[in-house]
Amino acid sequence: MKKIIVINGPNMNLLGKREPEKYGTLTLDAICGEIAAKAEEWGAACEFFQSNSEGEIIGAVQNASDADGVILNAAAYTHYSIALRDAVAAIAAPVVEVHMSNVHAREDFRRNSVIAPVCKGSIAGFGAQSYILALYALLR
Amino acid sequence: MKKIIVINGPNMNLLGKREPEKYGTLTLDAICGEIAAKAEEWGAACEFFQSNSEGEIIGAVQNASDADGVILNAAAYTHYSIALRDAVAAIAAPVVEVHMSNVHAREDFRRNSVIAPVCKGSIAGFGAQSYILALYALLR
Amino acid sequence: MKKIIVINGPNMNLLGKREPEKYGTLTLDAICGEIAAKAEEWGAACEFFQSNSEGEIIGAVQNASDADGVILNAAAYTHYSIALRDAVAAIAAPVVEVHMSNVHAREDFRRNSVIAPVCKGSIAGFGAQSYILALYALLR
Amino acid sequence: MKKIIVINGPNMNLLGKREPEKYGTLTLDAICGEIAAKAEEWGAACEFFQSNSEGEIIGAVQNASDADGVILNAAAYTHYSIALRDAVAAIAAPVVEVHMSNVHAREDFRRNSVIAPVCKGSIAGFGAQSYILALYALLR
Amino acid sequence: MKKIIVINGPNMNLLGKREPEKYGTLTLDAICGEIAAKAEEWGAACEFFQSNSEGEIIGAVQNASDADGVILNAAAYTHYSIALRDAVAAIAAPVVEVHMSNVHAREDFRRNSVIAPVCKGSIAGFGAQSYILALYALLR
Amino acid sequence: MKKIIVINGPNMNLLGKREPEKYGTLTLDAICGEIAAKAEEWGAACEFFQSNSEGEIIGAVQNASDADGVILNAAAYTHYSIALRDAVAAIAAPVVEVHMSNVHAREDFRRNSVIAPVCKGSIAGFGAQSYILALYALLR
Amino acid sequence: MKKIIVINGPNMNLLGKREPEKYGTLTLDAICGEIAAKAEEWGAACEFFQSNSEGEIIGAVQNASDADGVILNAAAYTHYSIALRDAVAAIAAPVVEVHMSNVHAREDFRRNSVIAPVCKGSIAGFGAQSYILALYALLR
Amino acid sequence: MKKIIVINGPNMNLLGKREPEKYGTLTLDAICGEIAAKAEEWGAACEFFQSNSEGEIIGAVQNASDADGVILNAAAYTHYSIALRDAVAAIAAPVVEVHMSNVHAREDFRRNSVIAPVCKGSIAGFGAQSYILALYALLR
Amino acid sequence: MKKIIVINGPNMNLLGKREPEKYGTLTLDAICGEIAAKAEEWGAACEFFQSNSEGEIIGAVQNASDADGVILNAAAYTHYSIALRDAVAAIAAPVVEVHMSNVHAREDFRRNSVIAPVCKGSIAGFGAQSYILALYALLR
Amino acid sequence: MKKIIVINGPNMNLLGKREPEKYGTLTLDAICGEIAAKAEEWGAACEFFQSNSEGEIIGAVQNASDADGVILNAAAYTHYSIALRDAVAAIAAPVVEVHMSNVHAREDFRRNSVIAPVCKGSIAGFGAQSYILALYALLR
Amino acid sequence: MKKIIVINGPNMNLLGKREPEKYGTLTLDAICGEIAAKAEEWGAACEFFQSNSEGEIIGAVQNASDADGVILNAAAYTHYSIALRDAVAAIAAPVVEVHMSNVHAREDFRRNSVIAPVCKGSIAGFGAQSYILALYALLR
Amino acid sequence: MKKIIVINGPNMNLLGKREPEKYGTLTLDAICGEIAAKAEEWGAACEFFQSNSEGEIIGAVQNASDADGVILNAAAYTHYSIALRDAVAAIAAPVVEVHMSNVHAREDFRRNSVIAPVCKGSIAGFGAQSYILALYALLR
Repeated sequence: MKKIIVINGPNMNLLGKREPEKYGTLTLDAICGEIAAKAEEWGAACEFFQSNSEGEIIGAVQNASDADGVILNAAAYTHYSIALRDAVAAIAAPVVEVHMSNVHAREDFRRNSVIAPVCKGSIAGFGAQSYILALYALLR
Repeated sequence: MKKIIVINGPNMNLLGKREPEKYGTLTLDAICGEIAAKAEEWGAACEFFQSNSEGEIIGAVQNASDADGVILNAAAYTHYSIALRDAVAAIAAPVVEVHMSNVHAREDFRRNSVIAPVCKGSIAGFGAQSYILALYALLR
Repeated sequence: MKKIIVINGPNMNLLGKREPEKYGTLTLDAICGEIAAKAEEWGAACEFFQSNSEGEIIGAVQNASDADGVILNAAAYTHYSIALRDAVAAIAAPVVEVHMSNVHAREDFRRNSVIAPVCKGSIAGFGAQSYILALYALLR
Repeated sequence: MKKIIVINGPNMNLLGKREPEKYGTLTLDAICGEIAAKAEEWGAACEFFQSNSEGEIIGAVQNASDADGVILNAAAYTHYSIALRDAVAAIAAPVVEVHMSNVHAREDFRRNSVIAPVCKGSIAGFGAQSYILALYALLR
Repeated sequence: MKKIIVINGPNMNLLGKREPEKYGTLTLDAICGEIAAKAEEWGAACEFFQSNSEGEIIGAVQNASDADGVILNAAAYTHYSIALRDAVAAIAAPVVEVHMSNVHAREDFRRNSVIAPVCKGSIAGFGAQSYILALYALLR
Repeated sequence: MKKIIVINGPNMNLLGKREPEKYGTLTLDAICGEIAAKAEEWGAACEFFQSNSEGEIIGAVQNASDADGVILNAAAYTHYSIALRDAVAAIAAPVVEVHMSNVHAREDFRRNSVIAPVCKGSIAGFGAQSYILALYALLR
Repeated sequence: MKKIIVINGPNMNLLGKREPEKYGTLTLDAICGEIAAKAEEWGAACEFFQSNSEGEIIGAVQNASDADGVILNAAAYTHYSIALRDAVAAIAAPVVEVHMSNVHAREDFRRNSVIAPVCKGSIAGFGAQSYILALYALLR
Repeated sequence: MKKIIVINGPNMNLLGKREPEKYGTLTLDAICGEIAAKAEEWGAACEFFQSNSEGEIIGAVQNASDADGVILNAAAYTHYSIALRDAVAAIAAPVVEVHMSNVHAREDFRRNSVIAPVCKGSIAGFGAQSYILALYALLR
Repeated sequence: MKKIIVINGPNMNLLGKREPEKYGTLTLDAICGEIAAKAEEWGAACEFFQSNSEGEIIGAVQNASDADGVILNAAAYTHYSIALRDAVAAIAAPVVEVHMSNVHAREDFRRNSVIAPVCKGSIAGFGAQSYILALYALLR
Repeated sequence: MKKIIVINGPNMNLLGKREPEKYGTLTLDAICGEIAAKAEEWGAACEFFQSNSEGEIIGAVQNASDADGVILNAAAYTHYSIALRDAVAAIAAPVVEVHMSNVHAREDFRRNSVIAPVCKGSIAGFGAQSYILALYALLR
Repeated sequence: MKKIIVINGPNMNLLGKREPEKYGTLTLDAICGEIAAKAEEWGAACEFFQSNSEGEIIGAVQNASDADGVILNAAAYTHYSIALRDAVAAIAAPVVEVHMSNVHAREDFRRNSVIAPVCKGSIAGFGAQSYILALYALLR
Repeated sequence: MKKIIVINGPNMNLLGKREPEKYGTLTLDAICGEIAAKAEEWGAACEFFQSNSEGEIIGAVQNASDADGVILNAAAYTHYSIALRDAVAAIAAPVVEVHMSNVHAREDFRRNSVIAPVCKGSIAGFGAQSYILALYALLR
């Protein structure tokens, strides 16, 4: 059975709890549940990790080295964490970058991803479905 | 039955015909065949359009206004065609930007998309599968 | 009788048909009708041309060389078509650049016109009246 | 009867007096005379104001708040007077930015207008006629 | 008794008179009244000065040299008046820069203050209270 | 009784312990003591948090969501922690940015705050008093 | 017999017809005649193509893939057509970039060629002789 | 007898009165006295003007049009007053730009002069002697 | 006996474990062993610290304040951690920046070190020997 | 008989001696021999000069003023020697800039030539043949 | 008797020999003669040095360390020779930078002087008289 | 016996002779003596070269091609001599870049090295010891 690691970055733990009119009422737990269900349907198992700490996220990426794939929503670290980029580049597993919102349609500083160049691919703008698309890409 | 328009930009007609060691041996026709089959499986019909001409691609986007979704690989026009951006912004149908290669890992000038801010979402780096992911996003 | 050529660029054909709450309900045809009527009142004849294709617009500008004046709304090409700039610079007829919206109040990339430096003058922000002002400038 | 305020910025008082080979022999008074005549023809009254002082021009704009329109040639202040911009943004009357020369064809630093984004529209390049076009735009 | 000079820059005279939905209904006079009352409570006397003219504001700063403190809301001059900066740097009295709005949350060009580096400190975003905070900083 | 959370960022724990000739001999504890006393005087209670870790500071901000106000001296993270910015933007409590030194008078890279745009306001340059001013702003 | 394709970009059709004092009286036809004669002398055959349309020029480059060499004067497209660059990079035939004028001595925006990096070489400044030099380079 | 106009900009009135350890104890009056004496020795008469107001300095430059020369220390306006630049460019008299300090050795923003390009020449770094050198240049 | 603290930043724990063809087969432990041996030979004792967490590295630098020297390989944090820079600047011990690879020969964003300006010196490009050179510099 | 001066800049003396797999085995002497032979065939005489010294190359250009043409491969000085540019601009003889490699396909800093704007024309990318093309351009 | 060293940079040896319509007919020898005569009149002796070589000019500056003053026209080296800047900074004698033309009115790249920040002062735009003004500044 | 070439750039000959309070009293000769002694201790022989001339330094680098290592302190040429960079890149011997001062802590323009990317490694900030460290790196 294939193993997919889903890593979420800073402030993703607030999803569905604050500003629901802006980010929806779906909590991160609910989204993870949907991903896990879809993974099971497609014959894979998911593990989930969330942290606000750059160092812990780097550790989670390092630990995912022997997984069959990593789905990484680095949130704000996307835009400046060269340390996270180096971790992504160092591991063997393919990493897919996902964003729930269309980052290209937001502030200018959100348009640059220091992580994208070392990922396999990048998916943005489809809400919780962005994760499912990444799962599809890694499993199909 | 849902209708999805798949629009490919300049030089995409060369796919599989030139530099196969770089871009693979899959022709654009073969890719479109795969997309059409998958669409059928998911209960939708696809129409395909390719052109090297910025004006004709703008026309194709305008004509797709009443489709259920547009999959747009604008190729090099991605990086400078504000005219194409305006067409995407003007139509009612949701447009998903796709790229076969990970454009973020290529030359600097390929990292900027003038079209992404007005699309629903963006998918890059999964080869021919990028189109399938876009299809999934539009149909599911 | 003086001859004025009115050239409209990409996506101007959508005027009044899409997003009326944003761009008004006046179609391009209706605007052209107003211009033609005013021209007749002022003793001139207008010819109209619209295209989404950069190359065709360049051709239209070249063909207007012996007109008494050209009114050019290059739309998105305004911001990057050096080829169109060269065409404007090459012809004998005076060219007036017009924009319906106040481009200076929109996205940053719309504030630069590569065409303006080789036009006689520039008019922006007065809606359909921008064309009438350009007509006045060329005829009075 | 409609009231239009015409405000001219720094060095405009030298028009027609210095470097006639470059700026023509028409003095500012003569131009104002033409504008006043045209305004009368179109059923409006003009008031004229010129100053080299940024503060006084700001005051003139503030005082024009209940006019039916303001024609503003801010001359060099166009390019850096954020204070003047704020005054224009604060008043109720519509303001039209005019320039006699085609500022886009001059030095690079003259291509940026900090005032244009808060004006109704902008007209440049038609000599003294630029004012008449602005008048037309405000009255018609 | 300590003497504090409160200097307000261009367009501050419009406060409460125009666009009340945006800037509130409090006039500059009312704000000055509040500041004066608070100063009296804290054993100090305030003098107030407002001008749209860069030169007059520079003069006011020069004249404040022997005060116990200066509260300066330079408004738009904040962003480009190097001349005002030089005046602030030249006087003995400590100068506190204040802004009613959070200038960092507005247009990009409002994020740079040429005056801040030569002030004692800077306070922004608290409406009329920004002045009271500056007063507190100078007197406590 | 109102609750105010005071959050200090990296290296603030060194205050008063190193380079006293540069930063004074007041320790962070002493400053917090002063703030607490003043808060008590003004009928509020303060809680204090300091960390060198970006992730822990983000957590502290998230936890402060239901406080009556947050005083945040993000120190060096001010200039690049978009993750911290997102946390500040996400919570309900008003956040006031403070700096003890006048950051505008220091190195260029310290003049940019990625956090300021999402704070209520910003106070810099008054040493330990900067915190008292922020407290005053939140309580009065 | 070797086959050389000579492709000319936008506005090159105006050569010799407009502004002869600037660009000379030699028409594009006359220049092509000279090139053809020289090619014949050197044992090769030339085919000529000119278009104002970016898309058609891309098509012409694609069609030249099996030629022995391509001489490309992309005119204004030189400076921004990444789509044309991609076509040049995709074909097997060596492409030589030519310009009649010394583009380095003209406006700044004409100093950058997006096409040059993927051409075999570049020749500029020798008028119609630039083409003959390119022919020499491809045949000798 | 030749007439030379000496124009001093903002804050120059503070010379010798504030921060004597930095700018010396020589007042502007004393410097003007030295210039006047030297001018007399060289057979010329000087007139002096100082203002903190950009508009008044522009007026002074305009009034100097028929002088035999203008010595202009625009102080901080040197770096941004395009309006002053336009006045200098408009008058017939040769204008020499002077600075007492070596502006090139100060802050970066003081290294750019918008006025220098339209002056006859520029002299900086010689203290009060900078004026005497300018006088020498205009009279010899 | 002198005490030297050796601090390694993010992803340095992967050395020798991943991509040995790129980074060699020497693990961080092995390198630390070599440094310790050399230090002993030169009469000093080393302590070693590695973390992926910016906050923990800052803590380690703060704790090293009374050491005889610090050898710091901040890895990716080199390029953006102003917080780490502040820690380095705050402590008494001399800090030497080391890099195993020649960072100047890598991506552009690796050419800038925000830490170097506050270090005693910088050594890059000599593999594991970079640490030995730093040790030599601190002890000899 | 026409006289052509061929000037080669820094490190060109290493051609064919070092890194033959990169630059080929042709020495500069061999290349000069080929140029001389071709020149003789076309009825001209060549003189050759090579130096690593910017000053000596400037001297060589100055001495070439009465030649019938100069072929200049300034190598690395191409990108920054304004002094060499001034020498090229000062002499009467036409100067052709040549490069053996396609400088546009190399590092970014090699894409700018400070010399090209004052040369007659520029040829790059054809190896030793670049010189022959320049010779052809000067003699035909 | 005071000793002044006059150092002229690259291409200054061509003065009066080439392009007399642009640079005048005065040779460098003639200018040096004028300077020497004026120096004698003012009780000083001049020594002159000219070279096209950056290294030799640096040597000349080093050798001038015990002179009473140096007049340096570094010509094109003004804009990029940091090595020359270092030499100027290293010597005890005051150095005055001179330019015959108004460099601020020429190409943009001529507006930056890397040497000016370490000179005593700077004089530009007065032709040969620039040297006399520098002499005056050093001797009076 | 290994041979190491030590090359020093412009103004290094002034070391210890001028501004001893800034650069110390150690002359270049004394430093070279120390290096030679250390080299002998480590079983190698050093040769020394210093010049102010870019061309001569390039020659020295070329001549060092068969040495066992080159220690290069290019001084100011570090920041702009692409010609020197090309020489370093062309030779077989490993080159180590050294600086006595911490160039990263000085002016911004000293932070960029055009030479570092083609050196084996880089050492800065350790005074005369920087050379010893480089020697150690090349011999151990």
